[in-house]
Amino acid sequence: MRLVDLIRKKRDGQELTAREIEFIVGGYTRGELPDYQISSWLMAVLLKGMTRAETAALTQAMLHSGEVLQWNDLPQKKVDKHSTGGVGDKTSLILAPIVAAGGLIVPMSSGRGLGHTGGTLDKLESIPGFNVNLSAEEMHKVLAACGACMIGQTASIVPADKKMYALRDVTGTVESPALICASIMSKKLAEGIDALVLDVKIGSGAFMKEESSAAHLAQLMVETGEQMGKKVVSLLTDMDQPLGRAVGNALEVIECVEVLQGRGADDLKNLTLELSAWMFYLGERTKTLEEGRTLAATLVSSGAALKKFSEMVRLQGGDARALENVALLPTARNKMDVNNSADGYVAQMDCEKIGIASLVLGGGRSTKEDVIDPAVGLIVHKKVGDKVAAGEPLSTLYYNRSDQLEESRALIQASYKINSKPLLKKNPLIHRVIQGTSSTAVKN
Amino acid sequence: MRLVDLIRKKRDGQELTAREIEFIVGGYTRGELPDYQISSWLMAVLLKGMTRAETAALTQAMLHSGEVLQWNDLPQKKVDKHSTGGVGDKTSLILAPIVAAGGLIVPMSSGRGLGHTGGTLDKLESIPGFNVNLSAEEMHKVLAACGACMIGQTASIVPADKKMYALRDVTGTVESPALICASIMSKKLAEGIDALVLDVKIGSGAFMKEESSAAHLAQLMVETGEQMGKKVVSLLTDMDQPLGRAVGNALEVIECVEVLQGRGADDLKNLTLELSAWMFYLGERTKTLEEGRTLAATLVSSGAALKKFSEMVRLQGGDARALENVALLPTARNKMDVNNSADGYVAQMDCEKIGIASLVLGGGRSTKEDVIDPAVGLIVHKKVGDKVAAGEPLSTLYYNRSDQLEESRALIQASYKINSKPLLKKNPLIHRVIQGTSSTAVKN
Repeated sequence: MRLVDLIRKKRDGQELTAREIEFIVGGYTRGELPDYQISSWLMAVLLKGMTRAETAALTQAMLHSGEVLQWNDLPQKKVDKHSTGGVGDKTSLILAPIVAAGGLIVPMSSGRGLGHTGGTLDKLESIPGFNVNLSAEEMHKVLAACGACMIGQTASIVPADKKMYALRDVTGTVESPALICASIMSKKLAEGIDALVLDVKIGSGAFMKEESSAAHLAQLMVETGEQMGKKVVSLLTDMDQPLGRAVGNALEVIECVEVLQGRGADDLKNLTLELSAWMFYLGERTKTLEEGRTLAATLVSSGAALKKFSEMVRLQGGDARALENVALLPTARNKMDVNNSADGYVAQMDCEKIGIASLVLGGGRSTKEDVIDPAVGLIVHKKVGDKVAAGEPLSTLYYNRSDQLEESRALIQASYKINSKPLLKKNPLIHRVIQGTSSTAVKN
Repeated sequence: MRLVDLIRKKRDGQELTAREIEFIVGGYTRGELPDYQISSWLMAVLLKGMTRAETAALTQAMLHSGEVLQWNDLPQKKVDKHSTGGVGDKTSLILAPIVAAGGLIVPMSSGRGLGHTGGTLDKLESIPGFNVNLSAEEMHKVLAACGACMIGQTASIVPADKKMYALRDVTGTVESPALICASIMSKKLAEGIDALVLDVKIGSGAFMKEESSAAHLAQLMVETGEQMGKKVVSLLTDMDQPLGRAVGNALEVIECVEVLQGRGADDLKNLTLELSAWMFYLGERTKTLEEGRTLAATLVSSGAALKKFSEMVRLQGGDARALENVALLPTARNKMDVNNSADGYVAQMDCEKIGIASLVLGGGRSTKEDVIDPAVGLIVHKKVGDKVAAGEPLSTLYYNRSDQLEESRALIQASYKINSKPLLKKNPLIHRVIQGTSSTAVKN
């Protein structure tokens, strides 16, 4: 088999066999195939597409490029959630404790923030001492003790994706549904899970702005997961405005604690409970989705979920007292309100601009090498549909350095579109649910 | 400017500016841009295409990636011919002397054979002592002395093409009309010519089997050359059978001498005279194409062209006596006829198979590193339309090693399709002539 022939085959629109795809992924991971051939192949894949069978074969080959975790001695079902990323999207920190408190195992690996979107690892690391770099053995100990563990991706898991993603990033080959699907699904399935809930974001703060492309990816991931024997569901959810009110790492941890205390913003609370309910249902903890919803709500109101969060933080080396006393979290020295100029109603928010407003204060990364400031960010006071008077604060910026303050302020101002008349129709929080054949029999 | 943004732009079907293309070509030639990004860009170019303006900008950028030859002290017009390659295609060795004998300058650079097609340099090097590796100064001396000089591509001319072609070869990005056009035209225009005749081959022995794709490339090259101020014409010519009768390096040199002596196969003679006529006409040596034809025929019949060939061979270090006494050329030790099995007429020849039949005897290269045997090859006795009796030889193989003899024989046998009835219609030698605006006013 010669790689150049496989490149030509894909270029000419033909379907590659599972063996051919394994040759490419395995050879590249082992360093036997050069970057310059793989990047040409990736561009051909992006422009010519992959069939379902090819996408599944690619996912399988990537999954088996490294270690696949197993938790055979833990009898409970293992479930996870993955989000395609957004602004203020902090559901992982809330639902992992809820689902573990409900008796399932949540072996979650996450990524860091890049560009306008935040990352779960960065949020967790704003808790003093919290360690996301656990070995498989350490992760096993945490899971056995409390049911949830949240780590970063280790070098031994799906090494093909690390190499391939770095190459895609610089060769214009990121935006391929098949490549995105294989990248996400291989990493999630390498966690050794039985079921997966996918939160595919749509809107101005999402990577995919259009519902049609998000739905295509969602469908592809569901089918690919099912072909590999997993229960998978995709929820297409709204990212036309930040989720909740906090954007920025420590600020988001505080909001998570609020939700676990039964407080917090409705959209964040509702989405988190819905995702948790799906995890209970697909993980066969409840017989129906509705029972899953009830269970999730109960675990929050009883305080069991917050207790579980505290337990997990402690087991991963974090200072759990910071969850009760937020003064122990990194705190910005200054804050400034961004005020509204005329009476009206919030008609629209450019969610990507809000993400960048936090980034420029130091809350995010422009490049992978940037160091973030966990304390900074912003709190959104007015969201889409809200009535707002002239002079009222739209958002509050939390900052340590003032050199990018004006840029951040201008971004917030520019992100709000205020109309004189009330908004007639708001986006639903959940646009659509895409289920595979094995999860279609939802009992509501 | 970041290359990844330009890759994405091309991937998304947008037109690159001349400045952006120059950034890519210049940066790659200087080693500032990595192979893995260029190969991804090349695949995007292949799959998304280039506009006429982009193709011209690419040709321009490649042309100026290295030295552009100039012959300002030689007052005559400089003309050249380029063929896209075929089997038995030896017109360069005949027409360069004809055109130089007619008073124009022919500063010709050529390539080597690869796969089933032969290369002009390999043919020339079968003449003992012939040196194709001349510097620009040495080439100037030969041109000043005799008007024609035939060399290989030097490192200083279009270095972008050398690097890019090597990358295209292993990344499935060869078959792009825009990339092929820029590669050919930049190298030819770097010779410092005023006019160019392109011989674009069609048929079973050509790289492009279909007339439509050959015509597209031909048109593109004519337009690109004209945009750069040159007179260009493309002749789409037949390569459904070998040109002439000889295939193999020394054997082809002998056939060239025969044509220059007024003998030789009609198709080879006619095509060479027609190409020469176009060179005279575009090089403004004659007022009409018809006058060009007359001049070319006269230069052959007078012996002036053969004398010019002999002169050029001598000036480039070759043993010119070998042109009169072919025993001085490399000669194969053995020969074997491939005989016909049943009475009939040659209906078709698979020309690529015939090229490979010579290659496997050692007359060509499978890879760039292969060393060729200049003595071996074959003589075709029967061509399309010929009547052939059972037991009559179709071709004669000339060989030194017998290990691939059976394969070669089988290829020849398989390449002939013999029908019981005579052929009703033969392909024309010249399918079409594609002219640009500045050469449309052909006076026949």
